[in-house]
Amino acid sequence: MPKEIITPRAKDYSQWYLDIVRNADLADYAEVVRGCIVFKPTGYAIWEAIQRSLDDRIKETGHENAYFPLLIPKSFIMKEAEHVEGFAPELLEVTKIGDTVLADPYVIRPTSETIIGHFYAQWVHSWRDLPLLINQWANVMRSEKRTRPFLRTSEFLWQEGHTVHATEAEAEEETLKILNDVYVDFVEKEMAIPVLKGRKTDKEKFAGALRTYTFEAMMQDGKALQAGTSHNLGQNFAKAFEIKFTDKNNTPQYAWTTSWGVTTRLIGALIMVHSDDEGLVLPPRLAPRQVVVVPIYKNDEERTKVLDAVDRITAGWKGRIRFKVDDRDNVSPGFKYNEWELKGVPIRIEVGPRDVEKGSVALARRDIPGKAGKSFVPQEGLTELIEATLAEIQQGLFDRALKFRNDHTQTVSDYAELKAAVEIGFALCYWDGDADDEQKIQDELKATVRVIPFDQPEKSGKCVLTGRETSQQVIIARSY
Amino acid sequence: MPKEIITPRAKDYSQWYLDIVRNADLADYAEVVRGCIVFKPTGYAIWEAIQRSLDDRIKETGHENAYFPLLIPKSFIMKEAEHVEGFAPELLEVTKIGDTVLADPYVIRPTSETIIGHFYAQWVHSWRDLPLLINQWANVMRSEKRTRPFLRTSEFLWQEGHTVHATEAEAEEETLKILNDVYVDFVEKEMAIPVLKGRKTDKEKFAGALRTYTFEAMMQDGKALQAGTSHNLGQNFAKAFEIKFTDKNNTPQYAWTTSWGVTTRLIGALIMVHSDDEGLVLPPRLAPRQVVVVPIYKNDEERTKVLDAVDRITAGWKGRIRFKVDDRDNVSPGFKYNEWELKGVPIRIEVGPRDVEKGSVALARRDIPGKAGKSFVPQEGLTELIEATLAEIQQGLFDRALKFRNDHTQTVSDYAELKAAVEIGFALCYWDGDADDEQKIQDELKATVRVIPFDQPEKSGKCVLTGRETSQQVIIARSY
Repeated sequence: MPKEIITPRAKDYSQWYLDIVRNADLADYAEVVRGCIVFKPTGYAIWEAIQRSLDDRIKETGHENAYFPLLIPKSFIMKEAEHVEGFAPELLEVTKIGDTVLADPYVIRPTSETIIGHFYAQWVHSWRDLPLLINQWANVMRSEKRTRPFLRTSEFLWQEGHTVHATEAEAEEETLKILNDVYVDFVEKEMAIPVLKGRKTDKEKFAGALRTYTFEAMMQDGKALQAGTSHNLGQNFAKAFEIKFTDKNNTPQYAWTTSWGVTTRLIGALIMVHSDDEGLVLPPRLAPRQVVVVPIYKNDEERTKVLDAVDRITAGWKGRIRFKVDDRDNVSPGFKYNEWELKGVPIRIEVGPRDVEKGSVALARRDIPGKAGKSFVPQEGLTELIEATLAEIQQGLFDRALKFRNDHTQTVSDYAELKAAVEIGFALCYWDGDADDEQKIQDELKATVRVIPFDQPEKSGKCVLTGRETSQQVIIARSY
Repeated sequence: MPKEIITPRAKDYSQWYLDIVRNADLADYAEVVRGCIVFKPTGYAIWEAIQRSLDDRIKETGHENAYFPLLIPKSFIMKEAEHVEGFAPELLEVTKIGDTVLADPYVIRPTSETIIGHFYAQWVHSWRDLPLLINQWANVMRSEKRTRPFLRTSEFLWQEGHTVHATEAEAEEETLKILNDVYVDFVEKEMAIPVLKGRKTDKEKFAGALRTYTFEAMMQDGKALQAGTSHNLGQNFAKAFEIKFTDKNNTPQYAWTTSWGVTTRLIGALIMVHSDDEGLVLPPRLAPRQVVVVPIYKNDEERTKVLDAVDRITAGWKGRIRFKVDDRDNVSPGFKYNEWELKGVPIRIEVGPRDVEKGSVALARRDIPGKAGKSFVPQEGLTELIEATLAEIQQGLFDRALKFRNDHTQTVSDYAELKAAVEIGFALCYWDGDADDEQKIQDELKATVRVIPFDQPEKSGKCVLTGRETSQQVIIARSY
């Protein structure tokens, strides 16, 4: 396998992304199934790491996992008016079983509010049954014509939380707890991706939600990516599916529900925020393999000596460091360096015969490519050094991404400035527009209001489009 | 929630099973989606425990996880003749996306040999690419009219391994390694279920396989349950999907493939092997919660005193014992005992004010219901005692199930004996019949040849049906 060329980011960011996906062996196109991909082992391992870490947080905040049917009676989707409008064109319909044509077809779940709402209506009777806090890990399908691996695919993997509460305040608290304590905590600490959190405009909110909260990250081309959302559904789905309970005064009430999800598109965000022109770069806390050890030798005698040393060096690593010793004999060390660089392993350790004699190893950092990131260090204390370096890389990736975002975010005060700002990144501006104004910006600038940040200014200012005085600032940007 | 009645096993085993599923809150029927169930949190937590433990073994034997599309072009299923015959009547067909009718419909995967074979043909080129060892955790659908929760549902969850090898011998070795080192090791050690392992007859093998290996467990009604299968697919799928490689002599060859899977029906097996007339019984190694602590108090003063003691007692448990302190104030201790007994928690610890004074607790074992399983033990050394008791329960459940199987397995030498034996359990007998003979037994006795065990006798004997001399013994039984 010769080194394949990765198009530099500066030349063609979009092609660079596809080159990373292909060269790091993360996914394959499934042309035979429209809009779908295969998650290859290297790509799927990233999803497994995301799942494990996120699942811990979901459970720590009191939720349990369950699993609901893949298929939803088509009639269910029709019950919530905004919901059906949002999803109808993307639905895949099951109309036959064997040779039998179904009188009432099913759709493959595009999201599960409706089918889960149906069951919750049967499970919830009294205030004692609340809150009901359930999460599901599942595949969903929304037909897409233009596919980008991980970012936009007809079938994708996700978790979807669905909760039921007795009051609007409790539903709102849940929606925000998920955003802050589960999602943002995970994405910033584990994925090393800084995000802006806040509310979506009515135009951008989930089909059927009262309020949608979001967290948005900046990619290296300055575009925004919605990394996940948490919805306060109000009583919309409770009314559509008759989720009712008797309160402490024995009065029947409609419940308040929430839903929230993140998807395999997080893998796309991870690639686009951290990777470079040499290949994938993975944050150590999420990397399926944190360290690869490459033994170097020319003959059997050296091989034995070096591999013995590698055994000694890595003896205490199990349970502390996720590592792999790449002792393949049919490829050269240079081939191995290249492969693990492409696949984003945070630290490479090289051990040759001279290292064995000198009691040293070479340590190469993936976040600093080339000679600048390579140093010779003693074998003694290596485990601790690696752990410290992994922590340093993790923080370094976050800091670098945050600096990039700050450098590419401009505060703008008129339309001309806005137009220029969205060419290179995020525009922070006062905004008092309505849905039509948002559409105008989308048509003219190919940009949208990404988020109304929780952090709002103390002073008011003039809306960047209408010129009206307003206290509300928003982030406008192009997006994935 | 008053205690609901569980039909005793002796009265109606089938109803007993459904009562356990309902009362332990493991699943709900999804009447609105034909043949499907909801895996409720208590049931799904068992699946998560199975997944974690099995996934470790799958990875330790060198496999990686990946994820392939849910949908398969219908034309793919048609490519392997036996395969299509086996699955066609159960297929769910996707014929529409939005308002567009598809010229080439998809089916929801009933199993993924075909779609994965399609990709493997593109990934495998040389002997250097082999073996290819991939596993997938996924949902699949095979339409069922008569549903039994976990045991028979239209949608179920499973893992399906799919591997490619250069030689028949390597494929055979893989098929057996999965059976022995992954499946049987897991089911016997973690699930505490003794199994009989061996080969399926040609009549009972997987549609498209060369050889199917199986492991069969005995339920408490004497029926067999096929707990999982491992298939040597020979070159059948390689030829249907053109999975070819150039060998070391640069000669193109068809590859040899395997596939293997276990499903959420393992949850059904777990229930049916260990549970009793009081509710679910879970083996400690797989129990999501191994210990529940129930504090007992009558007033605030006692409450503070008891909960302080509970904190002290459980201080060292995290990371050693999976436990829950049930400190709900709105239900009585008796209600809690009943609930956790129904849900199968292996050990219950009760702590009251007098226990605090005496430095003791009450320890109740789920595997020995009532007073016989309850003892008062000192708080000192409790952690170690609990760990030892959990190990004892685990072994005890396995031993009990093995004794039950031995007690209900009869060696039979003629048809009359066979007929009587399958009424109460397994019949071990010489067998030289063909597929028609198997059909005869199935029609007359409602029993099938479950497995040709690896353990075979040294002497030959007379076939229980044909009377012909043969060296082959089989297990014949009724089954789920």
